[in-house]
Amino acid sequence: MDVTWSLILDLLGTFFFAVSGSLLAARRGFDIVGSLLLGSLTGLGGGVMRDLVLGVTPTAFAQPIYLIPPLAAAVLVFFFVRPVERFPRLLLVFDAAGLALFCTTGAVKALELGMNPVAAALLGVMTGVGGGLLRDVVANRDPQLFNPRDLYAVPAMLGAASITALWVAGWYGPLAEVLIAALVFAFRVLSLRFKWHIPSAALDRSFGDRADG
Amino acid sequence: MDVTWSLILDLLGTFFFAVSGSLLAARRGFDIVGSLLLGSLTGLGGGVMRDLVLGVTPTAFAQPIYLIPPLAAAVLVFFFVRPVERFPRLLLVFDAAGLALFCTTGAVKALELGMNPVAAALLGVMTGVGGGLLRDVVANRDPQLFNPRDLYAVPAMLGAASITALWVAGWYGPLAEVLIAALVFAFRVLSLRFKWHIPSAALDRSFGDRADG
Amino acid sequence: MDVTWSLILDLLGTFFFAVSGSLLAARRGFDIVGSLLLGSLTGLGGGVMRDLVLGVTPTAFAQPIYLIPPLAAAVLVFFFVRPVERFPRLLLVFDAAGLALFCTTGAVKALELGMNPVAAALLGVMTGVGGGLLRDVVANRDPQLFNPRDLYAVPAMLGAASITALWVAGWYGPLAEVLIAALVFAFRVLSLRFKWHIPSAALDRSFGDRADG
Repeated sequence: MDVTWSLILDLLGTFFFAVSGSLLAARRGFDIVGSLLLGSLTGLGGGVMRDLVLGVTPTAFAQPIYLIPPLAAAVLVFFFVRPVERFPRLLLVFDAAGLALFCTTGAVKALELGMNPVAAALLGVMTGVGGGLLRDVVANRDPQLFNPRDLYAVPAMLGAASITALWVAGWYGPLAEVLIAALVFAFRVLSLRFKWHIPSAALDRSFGDRADG
Repeated sequence: MDVTWSLILDLLGTFFFAVSGSLLAARRGFDIVGSLLLGSLTGLGGGVMRDLVLGVTPTAFAQPIYLIPPLAAAVLVFFFVRPVERFPRLLLVFDAAGLALFCTTGAVKALELGMNPVAAALLGVMTGVGGGLLRDVVANRDPQLFNPRDLYAVPAMLGAASITALWVAGWYGPLAEVLIAALVFAFRVLSLRFKWHIPSAALDRSFGDRADG
Repeated sequence: MDVTWSLILDLLGTFFFAVSGSLLAARRGFDIVGSLLLGSLTGLGGGVMRDLVLGVTPTAFAQPIYLIPPLAAAVLVFFFVRPVERFPRLLLVFDAAGLALFCTTGAVKALELGMNPVAAALLGVMTGVGGGLLRDVVANRDPQLFNPRDLYAVPAMLGAASITALWVAGWYGPLAEVLIAALVFAFRVLSLRFKWHIPSAALDRSFGDRADG
């Protein structure tokens, strides 16, 4: 994959996640700077965690161009929050695109830097779900990642595992990466559309009703 | 301490902490993937933070075998959540074993990598309490670490300081490490059994009754 | 700036932030160890995040003297929580001094280590606001950083940007750093005194009234 093409996809993913952060800031009544900060954390957080584990300077700091998507997201939400809200599914589509992209590019970056395949797949998942987790933790709400009515992590896990398997098999290439990202995206959107879900953490379903200990 | 023996102890500690994360996930009604993620964060989080500070690749990523304990914990909680819950003290015993192990192995790893003794003791404490702190923060609840009716951090501090002192004195060895871990474990269990506690953050006890500012 | 002078300022900033953490611990009814831990996280957290991004050993671990301010803060709050509380503005003044100092020293450290100017300014902001954010997240409350009635991040952004601009222009020096820190401090105190605020995250002000989605 050409560096420029890869960078554009990464910046797009950053933008989509940043919109979700800035929109949450608007819903919470934060000011415009809070919107910029929460959007930055959401869009850049997953990649920063990945790069810290990889032991390289986080791209968000090494390449200042990464700050443009959060700025654009904060401006977009500031002026156009009503239209954006009118299409809540549009936002979920954006979020799904960011997730699909980050789980594959995160795994590929780890593989390029020589991580073992298991860790690379894990880092792909972390890149995909990390920013949204930071967003929800910092905004003091229950993370979307743990919502039992939403398969959020599963598409990211499948995508990161698939791209890693292709890499190990020697079949990795730009086309494969785009294809897998598209499949992850489609899976995520379909899971939302048809309300797919997976088993609860406990086989005994009555358990979850108990008070939190 | 033989590498294999040390690794087994570390994996056991990871497993015990992961059970506490997966069990919290079950109590909250998360799905099975959420259980795996929260268990992984709890079991691996402390070690990852320690390794990031030490500037080495986190063991959870460098050695894929570290992913087996969280997987086992999620499966265990999925099938056997009722029996596990029937012995809540058993779980606290597991947690105490993880704490005792991590606070000593964390400090030893820091000392082996040349950190100064004060930082090594601090990293031992961070390794011991870090995973549980991440678990509670991500699950959006008040951290057990700050529970004033529970001496959670104190045994970890004593253990990390003791093993560091032995290292500085030149008396460190596998036997000493196991002995100190056992003492930390015993202290933690006794503190739970006899409800030991320490002074409040403010000498003026009426202060804590005020509203949060 | 002389190393000793710089270190003293940094330790003072650590102390002021640590007081805010220990005081929150006292308000929440944490015990004395919880007070020490929350104070340490608040005072040292911003610098640790900065140093992890910079790829150097965090100063809090490299130099054990950094543990003295959180210890002093926990002791101070333990014995003198009532007098400290009697002057809530005094605490905000301390916090403002910490913020002013950390946003400039954080940016300067990043520039000294060769980061690009944009990243250096960003790291200055992260150093200034990071500890307080960790404090609030760990204590499970809405972060002060996102309080729309408080310009918390704005003075830090201006200070970090200013010192970075001076560095790029070749006008950086100890006097410039102290001057900018003083201006940031004054701006922060004035913004509190006169309740300055900035626009909301959404132009459509009625939006924030909606329920959190």
